[in-house]
Amino acid sequence: MTRLLNPLPLLNDIFLRALRSQPTAYTPIWIMRQAGRYLPEYRALRAKAGSFLGLMKNPDAATQVTLQPIERFPLDAAILFSDILTVGDAMGLGLSFAEGEGPRFETPVRDEAQVKALAVPDIEAKLPYVMTTIKQIRRELTTADGHQKLPLIGFAGSPWTLACYMVEGGKSADFRTIKSMLYKRPDLLHHILDINARALCDYLDAQIAAGVNAVMIFDTWGGVLSDEAFASFSLQYTTRIVAELHARYPDPVTRPPIIVFTKGGGQWLERTAACQADAIGVDWTTSLSQARERLSYKNTGRYTALQGNLDPTILLSNEQVIRAEARKTLEDYGPTPGHIFNLGHGVLPITPPEHVGALVDEVHTASRAIRLAK
Amino acid sequence: MTRLLNPLPLLNDIFLRALRSQPTAYTPIWIMRQAGRYLPEYRALRAKAGSFLGLMKNPDAATQVTLQPIERFPLDAAILFSDILTVGDAMGLGLSFAEGEGPRFETPVRDEAQVKALAVPDIEAKLPYVMTTIKQIRRELTTADGHQKLPLIGFAGSPWTLACYMVEGGKSADFRTIKSMLYKRPDLLHHILDINARALCDYLDAQIAAGVNAVMIFDTWGGVLSDEAFASFSLQYTTRIVAELHARYPDPVTRPPIIVFTKGGGQWLERTAACQADAIGVDWTTSLSQARERLSYKNTGRYTALQGNLDPTILLSNEQVIRAEARKTLEDYGPTPGHIFNLGHGVLPITPPEHVGALVDEVHTASRAIRLAK
Repeated sequence: MTRLLNPLPLLNDIFLRALRSQPTAYTPIWIMRQAGRYLPEYRALRAKAGSFLGLMKNPDAATQVTLQPIERFPLDAAILFSDILTVGDAMGLGLSFAEGEGPRFETPVRDEAQVKALAVPDIEAKLPYVMTTIKQIRRELTTADGHQKLPLIGFAGSPWTLACYMVEGGKSADFRTIKSMLYKRPDLLHHILDINARALCDYLDAQIAAGVNAVMIFDTWGGVLSDEAFASFSLQYTTRIVAELHARYPDPVTRPPIIVFTKGGGQWLERTAACQADAIGVDWTTSLSQARERLSYKNTGRYTALQGNLDPTILLSNEQVIRAEARKTLEDYGPTPGHIFNLGHGVLPITPPEHVGALVDEVHTASRAIRLAK
Repeated sequence: MTRLLNPLPLLNDIFLRALRSQPTAYTPIWIMRQAGRYLPEYRALRAKAGSFLGLMKNPDAATQVTLQPIERFPLDAAILFSDILTVGDAMGLGLSFAEGEGPRFETPVRDEAQVKALAVPDIEAKLPYVMTTIKQIRRELTTADGHQKLPLIGFAGSPWTLACYMVEGGKSADFRTIKSMLYKRPDLLHHILDINARALCDYLDAQIAAGVNAVMIFDTWGGVLSDEAFASFSLQYTTRIVAELHARYPDPVTRPPIIVFTKGGGQWLERTAACQADAIGVDWTTSLSQARERLSYKNTGRYTALQGNLDPTILLSNEQVIRAEARKTLEDYGPTPGHIFNLGHGVLPITPPEHVGALVDEVHTASRAIRLAK
């Protein structure tokens, strides 16, 4: 089933053009967790809402939080304020956030009966607040003369990453519970991943229908797998989502670009890019110039943009260092089209906001200069 | 200065032969943290000693702990029971181990005065218990007719990994303190790393003089660095240690082989191997067959053995799975000389000891069969 997209023309579309590996006058930038704890205006809203979950499930509040960073900095995209695990909540697993401990599911999925009881949830019925928030953000981004100021990014966790929290119940140092399942009962894990892939596909589709202009799949924990297990328990299912979204939105010109990011997945770039995503996220352990070469048209027969990859701890230093490191990153990638500047992981809560401002400014200024000097 | 080595002939030298990329009738195996909490006999001794530090600093106890796993399993090497951070203790930083929290230094090194006060310690004077333990283990490994049963491995943390604990004071989720120093005051960090490299070189040299047959450098936290920072803040200093040890022990036939292991360093194998170590450790995120090809004589002009790389969580499954995964790992590497079987990280404390027994048995049996079938 193909859905009708009804986008407004964008005032700033360089993020989308870079995702499609088209030339841009400068390098677009957005920042993972750009709406979050490092911003005092976020902390104020968070305190009023009482909890992260309360903030996320309230469309007015979630809209405000989404817009906060783009009001402060000239970022090239907004990203929906939400969580990578909402689909597990829609499955009835009871998502909660313990202070300083990250997300938890109240009822982890561990034995055969629990696994077999899982079903693909009715996304529109279970996660209405997400779609309401997206529509509200789109309205807020709309100008009086019928333009959209910036693109809006939707997102979800990858099937494997969602499964990690579903099986472990929360964060894990060694993923012993889900890996025990992987090695002892791979059939059960494949069952979970199949359901996750279908649910996440419906979820991203619903986000697109509600109005996001690009989607990102966060495979936060793919990098803890062995080379072989990554292919069969993570990438295989991410690939299915990309293929199904392409089937639902077959026009390559109008469909929202897809970004896939596996933290710690630098060794698997070629294989990951073969999932046909428009862009691959890379963290700071991977050289951008080498990644660009490895995923070049010459080597892969297709264009893949790259998103990344500054170490977030660099934003703890000072303006001078931040600007120098930003230039190094831009120069490492070079003037070739297809780079979206970002950190290699979420911005740290202790980051001074003005350091983010310096980064955004330097990326815009220096990337223009690099293109003109060419 | 070249020291005289006075080794006894080894009853089982296949570990050393594999490290030198020579043919062996089967694949040798030892296991990171093979002497440790998963063994009930270790937990008994640990309880008697009162603390990890007490155990490590008592040569009788440390000798017993070193020998425990080789008495239980037909492993191909013993590894000194000690810690990767002893040299920091020798520098007077006050090493301690809080239960369940890992190592800590009481007085972290953070400001310029603290950095400039650091000095290369007199290893023999400050760490006599390590050398006494090594000599005692060697005596215990000696047979009545003048052979040594198995090779003994000595080790230390890499200059960067030691610096992580020196600057952070303990474990860190994001290494924000040392990375802030790296980006704001690289001169201070280089000063620390220079002292660490010289101290660690003296330390490994002292271990060799006391009788270890091979040394391993654990770069446990190299993988948290950016591609560029890894080269200048970690690998550069590890390379210096290897070069200096080669200068002190110039005979390639008799000098103890050196193993370098960067956890999460799969993207940097070629560069790491260029440090001239005899063997490179790899974790489970790296394909052994690809690593073997990347570091082959054809591609690098030298022989480099590989050590690894089973995911430690596989040992939580069951005998059948463990044996199947061990065979897959062996087949992935193939019958080419130069593989030392190991896990990709330390054995988990909740591992049933009989699972380790099954792994050792399967590696020995299956690797022989693979060679004979060729």
